[in-house]
Amino acid sequence: MDDCFQIGGREFSSRLFIGTGKYPADGLIPDVCEASGAQVITVALRRVDFASETDNVMKHIPENMVLLPNTSGARNAEEAVRIARLARAAGCGDWIKIEVISDQRYLLPDNLETTKATEILAAEGFHVFPYMNPDLMDARRMVDAGAAAVMPLGAPIGTNRGIRTREMIRILIDEISLPIIVDAGIGKPSQACEAMEMGAAACLVNTAIASSSDPVSMGRAFGRAVDAGRAAYLAGLGSTRKEASASSPLTGFLGQGRA
Amino acid sequence: MDDCFQIGGREFSSRLFIGTGKYPADGLIPDVCEASGAQVITVALRRVDFASETDNVMKHIPENMVLLPNTSGARNAEEAVRIARLARAAGCGDWIKIEVISDQRYLLPDNLETTKATEILAAEGFHVFPYMNPDLMDARRMVDAGAAAVMPLGAPIGTNRGIRTREMIRILIDEISLPIIVDAGIGKPSQACEAMEMGAAACLVNTAIASSSDPVSMGRAFGRAVDAGRAAYLAGLGSTRKEASASSPLTGFLGQGRA
Amino acid sequence: MDDCFQIGGREFSSRLFIGTGKYPADGLIPDVCEASGAQVITVALRRVDFASETDNVMKHIPENMVLLPNTSGARNAEEAVRIARLARAAGCGDWIKIEVISDQRYLLPDNLETTKATEILAAEGFHVFPYMNPDLMDARRMVDAGAAAVMPLGAPIGTNRGIRTREMIRILIDEISLPIIVDAGIGKPSQACEAMEMGAAACLVNTAIASSSDPVSMGRAFGRAVDAGRAAYLAGLGSTRKEASASSPLTGFLGQGRA
Amino acid sequence: MDDCFQIGGREFSSRLFIGTGKYPADGLIPDVCEASGAQVITVALRRVDFASETDNVMKHIPENMVLLPNTSGARNAEEAVRIARLARAAGCGDWIKIEVISDQRYLLPDNLETTKATEILAAEGFHVFPYMNPDLMDARRMVDAGAAAVMPLGAPIGTNRGIRTREMIRILIDEISLPIIVDAGIGKPSQACEAMEMGAAACLVNTAIASSSDPVSMGRAFGRAVDAGRAAYLAGLGSTRKEASASSPLTGFLGQGRA
Repeated sequence: MDDCFQIGGREFSSRLFIGTGKYPADGLIPDVCEASGAQVITVALRRVDFASETDNVMKHIPENMVLLPNTSGARNAEEAVRIARLARAAGCGDWIKIEVISDQRYLLPDNLETTKATEILAAEGFHVFPYMNPDLMDARRMVDAGAAAVMPLGAPIGTNRGIRTREMIRILIDEISLPIIVDAGIGKPSQACEAMEMGAAACLVNTAIASSSDPVSMGRAFGRAVDAGRAAYLAGLGSTRKEASASSPLTGFLGQGRA
Repeated sequence: MDDCFQIGGREFSSRLFIGTGKYPADGLIPDVCEASGAQVITVALRRVDFASETDNVMKHIPENMVLLPNTSGARNAEEAVRIARLARAAGCGDWIKIEVISDQRYLLPDNLETTKATEILAAEGFHVFPYMNPDLMDARRMVDAGAAAVMPLGAPIGTNRGIRTREMIRILIDEISLPIIVDAGIGKPSQACEAMEMGAAACLVNTAIASSSDPVSMGRAFGRAVDAGRAAYLAGLGSTRKEASASSPLTGFLGQGRA
Repeated sequence: MDDCFQIGGREFSSRLFIGTGKYPADGLIPDVCEASGAQVITVALRRVDFASETDNVMKHIPENMVLLPNTSGARNAEEAVRIARLARAAGCGDWIKIEVISDQRYLLPDNLETTKATEILAAEGFHVFPYMNPDLMDARRMVDAGAAAVMPLGAPIGTNRGIRTREMIRILIDEISLPIIVDAGIGKPSQACEAMEMGAAACLVNTAIASSSDPVSMGRAFGRAVDAGRAAYLAGLGSTRKEASASSPLTGFLGQGRA
Repeated sequence: MDDCFQIGGREFSSRLFIGTGKYPADGLIPDVCEASGAQVITVALRRVDFASETDNVMKHIPENMVLLPNTSGARNAEEAVRIARLARAAGCGDWIKIEVISDQRYLLPDNLETTKATEILAAEGFHVFPYMNPDLMDARRMVDAGAAAVMPLGAPIGTNRGIRTREMIRILIDEISLPIIVDAGIGKPSQACEAMEMGAAACLVNTAIASSSDPVSMGRAFGRAVDAGRAAYLAGLGSTRKEASASSPLTGFLGQGRA
C-alpha cells in the first residue's frame, strides 16, 4: 500500500506514534519500537538527564526513530518555549510536541497557552505538534500559528478511556486541513483502530502499551490495529442499516419458494 | 506468537472467518482469502449449483481454505438438517454452520430450532456451529447438544451496526466453555478488534468485506484487526481510570518543584 | 393527557411498575407507591409468609395497587406454574409475572421454560407477564402462548446497567403487537425515560428505587421520568443531524450581512 | 422538595431553561412556558424588532419569565458586548447569554472571544452566562472573568445529538464551582434527565421543544424529565454491578433449599 504519511518534513509508513513513559524497564523500548513498527517516539524532556551515562532514556531509543520531544511539565507558553529551545540546543532536533498543563487532576491541556507557544516556536522553525482539548476554534488558531499537526485528546492522559471526545474529533477531521493525531486516552487497539477509521492521520499511544503486562505484544497489537483502521478508511467503510440485509438472495432452497 | 486456535478438530493461526456472499465478483474471493489470512470460509449451500461448471461459487474458494457450509434458507430444524446432510454428501466436509431463520425483516435466528438441529447433527458426527441470538440458557443448551462453538450475533445480518449485544456476548464469554465466535453485524475492523479484546475466540465477517469498494484491502484490514485484538487480549488490557495518570512523574522541570 | 394504558383487563394512567424487594424497611412501600404514582406492584410469592401477621410484605401494599405476583425462585416451568396457582388460590388475583431462572450469577431468564409456563397459565385464565431475554422468536412464541405483555430485560437484575439490550428491545417494539415492558437493569430515571421514548409500553423498576438512600424521592423521580418519556414518544421526537441548525435565521445583527 | 436554584441574583424552582427560536408560531410560547414550568427563557436580540407592534417575539413571552437575552449573531467579543449593552438599554434586564460564533457549519462557540466578552460585561454589572465548548481551562477563565454560570454544549446547536461531550461536562461539574448549565444538542427528555443526574445545575432546551410536532407536550415532558433527573441526583444514584443482584434473598420456594 502506497499510503505514505508526510508530516513535519518527513515521510512515514507507520501512523502509530509511541511514548517512553511508564515502562517497567526502559530497556523494553527498542523491542516495542520494532514490534509496533512505530517510527516516531515522544519523550518528556524533563525526564532526560543528558549528563547521565546510565540513567538516560535517550540511550534506549533506536537511532532510526524520529524523536518528538515534548514539553511535559510546562505550565504556560513561556515554559514550553524554553523547554523546546533547550531540546533543540541539546540535539533533539526541530520537532516539538507542546504540552502545557496546569491542571493536576485531569492533566488537561491549556489550549490558549499552547497556541501561544505554537506561534513562537513555529516562527523559530520548529515543526510544532500541539496537544489540545478538541476545540474547533482553537484548532484553527493553531493552524494559523503554523502548527504541523493538531493533537486532540481522546480522554485524559493515562485513563484508558478511549475516544470520549469523538464528536469533536470528527468535526476537527472534517474542518481542519492539518493532520489530526489523536493523543491521550486510547486504551485498546480497537480504539486506535476506530480513530483511524474516522480519518485521523495518526495516533499516539503510550500508557496502554507501556503499562501492559507485555508491552512488546501490546505494541505489536497497536501497530496492526492502526494499520487496519487506516486501510479500512482508505477502502471506504459501509453505511449502517437498521434492518437486516441477507448475505445472499433469499431464494429458496430444497425447491421451496420464498416470500 | 504460539496462539493456535483449535476448533472442530483442526488448528488455525487466523481467527477471522469470512464469507462468500455479496461480492461484486466471486473472482475476488481468492485474493480476499490471501489478504485477510482467513483459513475458514462459509458458503450458503443454497447458492451452490453443483451442476454448473461456470456459475459455481465453490470453484472460487482456494483449496487450502476450510469450508464451513451454512444452512441459510432453512426455516426450521428439519430443513437445516436436510441441508447439512446434502452438504456432506456433496463432499463439503463435516463442518456445518446452522442458520435457522424465519424472520425476513431482521433475519434473526431461531435459537430453539437451531438447538434441535445442533443436537441431531452433532450426533451424526458433524462439527456444528450454531448461529444464535446471544442467550445464556440457549448457549448452554447448545453446549449440551454437542456444538463445536457458539456463534452469537453482534447485530442483525448485513447491518454493519457493530457489537450491539455486547452485554450478552460478554456474559457468554464468561460462562460458556466453548469458543464464542461473534458473527453478523460487524461493520468495521475496530469492532472485530473489540470482540477479540473481549475474549471472543474468533469473528466471522462477510458483508463489511464483500460490500466494500475494495474488498481485498478491507479483508486485509479485518485480518490485522482480529490479530491485534487477540494479541491485546493475551497481553492483558489495562483498566480504565476516571482521573488522569501522568506518563512520567510530575517532577519539575527547569528547576521548579511541583506539587 | 388521555393516554390510558390497558393491560391484563385493566386500565392505568401510570406506566411505571414497581417492586417490593430490597427496601431498607417495607414500611416505605406505601410512600413510594404514592410518590411514584405507580399502580402496579410486583411481589415475590416466596417472600410472602401468609401465616405471619407481622412479617408479611403484603400488609404494606396499599389496597389500590394492582398486584403482580411473580414466580421468583422457580427454576423451570413446572415450578413457575405451581407458584402461580398457589398465588391465585391465596387470593393474589389472576395476574402473574413468570420468572424462571436457573442461572445464579447473572439471574438470566430461561425463555424456553418461561414460554411453557406462559402457555399453561394463559390457558388457565391468568394474565401472564413473562420476564425474558429479548429474543424476537421467543417473544413471538410468548404471543402465541397467550401472554398479556412481554417483559424483556434491559440488563441483568439489580445491576443498574441500563438498557444494554437496546438493539433487541427496539426490534421487539417494532415487531411484537403486545405491550413491551422493560424490566430489570434500569438504574436511573433517564434510562426509564429512554425506554419510554423508544416506545416501550411501561417499565418495571425495583432495585434503583428500593436501594436508593431516599426511595420515596427516587420513586417520584422515576414516575416523572416515565411520564416524560411517554409524552415525548407521543409528541414525536426529532431526528438527529450531523451539522448544526441555527435556532434563528442567520440574518445579521447590527447592520451586518452574513454569509 | 426545597431545592431552590439560585443564579444571577434570583431564585428558581425549575431547572429547565427554554428558548424562543424555531417555533411554528410564536403564539405557542406562553403555553410551552406554562406546560414546561420553565422560568427562564432565552431570546436572540437580533430577532427582536422593538419597533414592531405585531412581529415581535417579546410580546409572546409571559411577564413572569426571566429573560435571558443572547448575543446570537455576534462573531467576536466586541459584537457580543455591543449587543449586550443594547439589550440592557432596551429594557431586557441585566442577564446576558454570550454566544460568539464564527463557524457557520457547526455553530461552535469561540471560547476565547466569549471569555473576553464575559470579563467586560461582568465588570459592567451584567449576570453573564457564557455558552462554550466544554474545556476546563476556559471554564476556569470564565469563572475568573466573573461569569454567573458556565454553559457547555452537549452537541452542536440544533443537532438533537444529546450529550456527546459527556466526558468533559463531567469534569466541569467536578472541578468548577459555578453552576453548569448544559446547553445545545439535547434532543430528548432522557438526555436532559441524564445531564441533571450527572449534577448539572440546569439545562437549556430549544430545538427539541420548538421543532416537535407538539411543542406544548414536549415542553411538559422536558420539564418533568429535568425534575426527575435533579431529584435522582439529590437522592443519590446507585452504583452499577457487573453481576446480578437478586431483588429478594435467594431462599428457596416450595420447600426447596437453594445454593
